[in-house]
Amino acid sequence: MLIIASDEHRGHRYRELHNGEMVDGFERPERADLIAAALRSAGHHFVEPGPVDRELLGRVHTPAYVELLETAWARWVGAGHTATAAMGFMWPTGGFTDREPADIVGLLGRHSFSADTSIVAGTWAAVASSAAIATTAADRTLDDGETAYGLCRPPGHHAGRDRFGGYCLVNNAAVAAQRLRDRGMGRVGVLDVDYHHGNGTQEIFYARDDVVFVSIHADPVEEFPWFAGFPDERGSGDGEGANLNLALARGTGRAEWFAALAVALERLRGLDALVVSLGVDTFEDDPLGTFHLTTDDFGRMATEITGLGTPTAIVQEGGYESDDLGRNVAAFLAHI
Amino acid sequence: MLIIASDEHRGHRYRELHNGEMVDGFERPERADLIAAALRSAGHHFVEPGPVDRELLGRVHTPAYVELLETAWARWVGAGHTATAAMGFMWPTGGFTDREPADIVGLLGRHSFSADTSIVAGTWAAVASSAAIATTAADRTLDDGETAYGLCRPPGHHAGRDRFGGYCLVNNAAVAAQRLRDRGMGRVGVLDVDYHHGNGTQEIFYARDDVVFVSIHADPVEEFPWFAGFPDERGSGDGEGANLNLALARGTGRAEWFAALAVALERLRGLDALVVSLGVDTFEDDPLGTFHLTTDDFGRMATEITGLGTPTAIVQEGGYESDDLGRNVAAFLAHI
Repeated sequence: MLIIASDEHRGHRYRELHNGEMVDGFERPERADLIAAALRSAGHHFVEPGPVDRELLGRVHTPAYVELLETAWARWVGAGHTATAAMGFMWPTGGFTDREPADIVGLLGRHSFSADTSIVAGTWAAVASSAAIATTAADRTLDDGETAYGLCRPPGHHAGRDRFGGYCLVNNAAVAAQRLRDRGMGRVGVLDVDYHHGNGTQEIFYARDDVVFVSIHADPVEEFPWFAGFPDERGSGDGEGANLNLALARGTGRAEWFAALAVALERLRGLDALVVSLGVDTFEDDPLGTFHLTTDDFGRMATEITGLGTPTAIVQEGGYESDDLGRNVAAFLAHI
Repeated sequence: MLIIASDEHRGHRYRELHNGEMVDGFERPERADLIAAALRSAGHHFVEPGPVDRELLGRVHTPAYVELLETAWARWVGAGHTATAAMGFMWPTGGFTDREPADIVGLLGRHSFSADTSIVAGTWAAVASSAAIATTAADRTLDDGETAYGLCRPPGHHAGRDRFGGYCLVNNAAVAAQRLRDRGMGRVGVLDVDYHHGNGTQEIFYARDDVVFVSIHADPVEEFPWFAGFPDERGSGDGEGANLNLALARGTGRAEWFAALAVALERLRGLDALVVSLGVDTFEDDPLGTFHLTTDDFGRMATEITGLGTPTAIVQEGGYESDDLGRNVAAFLAHI
């Protein structure tokens, strides 16, 4: 299988606020390196992504948001801030306006929703490369007539139209889906199998019927992102009914998970193209997840998705450091 | 003058996320101790507050929010979290729902809006005491027929109906204003002279015409709280016109500041009672402010407010550690 990957992600390393303290980011360079090593061992073919398509990013997000991501670090340093990560510390929740602050600290709060994600010197290079990987994966899937996998880092599915958070800054899955649409695929599906709800992808396509979003994830009443991912979020306007959330209790095992996958695949049958947001943090030993999937289950997951017979591009989402991280992605790709 | 104060605040000490790093909280016990020392030196009379009025707190905020503040630390520890401060790391900004998470980390995000405020073992005792101080200050102002000052810590004016942030958890000024209303004062004013906009007080009274809120503060386009405090926020419904924001540019000097005060006092003339949210972070050497008021200016401020001839209770808001913090509060109270 064709693997699209790059080393540009390596400069994106930061600490995160997690459960009351600053810790080394769970979403760290070693993740991608572990996955890449496992996929090289499995004999997959690696290629570099093409250049990033800024115009495409500016349609999936907003041009101003993309420019903020690109310039935030320089603005942070230029404003005299000395901390090694650029981030906000206040977020406009209910009751506040969404005005655009003039200073970089306020602006980063306006354009994010969590304190687990920040911007360092190498962030834009990583983000642009990750989005380019997703775009190239979509292109190669159509060009080659077979599934391509984008080893995206940072991940993307939590990034909304103009807000970052949950380790995500540009929504790679949405970029891939939009690319497939732009290349003539009439109706595109996004299947998000990450442990956490893909709130950003949902938001971006919520009012559209040309991209169907289906997510299987931990019930947000007790897991990040807490404030999105409920079954009653079904889309709006033209998109009414084109959004399906399958929320599962903490500790869900394989029988229930695969029952949800069957429901998800039924909803996605017959579309022209598919993007899979592949998070492997549903693994039984993942440090952030509570589900009980095994390495073999990722192979089964791939087999069932392949059964749709739909042209499919895969982008990497979550899945955190464990001895099995690379093996789990490899198990999935072995069955595509 | 009568000073209402307590040592219960001392157990509320925590680190805060500020401009990209965790630092010792600017809102620390030493603040209240410095102020108390200066006021004792000036010969003021100190008394302890009465017991906290939970029913009153539950009307200014919501009963569920007050209960969350009281129980958060025990729930945090009970959930196995080991960090020394209980706080969220995701906040429901635009596009997210306001649902109530089941777990304490999500719930703390739902009921806050910034990462500069957290809850430690001693927080509830401090918060309850601070609210009791404000209530007692309102009571004594009416009972004694002369102004009482509440040395509240933590401060309160950023705390909204059911969200904490900006070092504030219960809105002491709103509690005092509501107490004055409950005791028969027909129309009550709140004058907020803190460097930062009192977004919480504004929110609590926004749709009411019986409490007029007037704030003089740094323009939120470039200062915390960024997403509230603009001049076009004038109140809603019955409260239309009962909210006045006087936003001043960073670096404002005394001439412009006192011109704004004159406008503020004109709006507050003829009410039955007044609460002053006394922040002294407008001081020229305050570590968080950029205005240029001097110690003498705080005396002038008090003289002008006293000119209204309205029964007035004062509660302490911000003002951060400097050699002059206590002197500035003392200068104000010397002219009441």
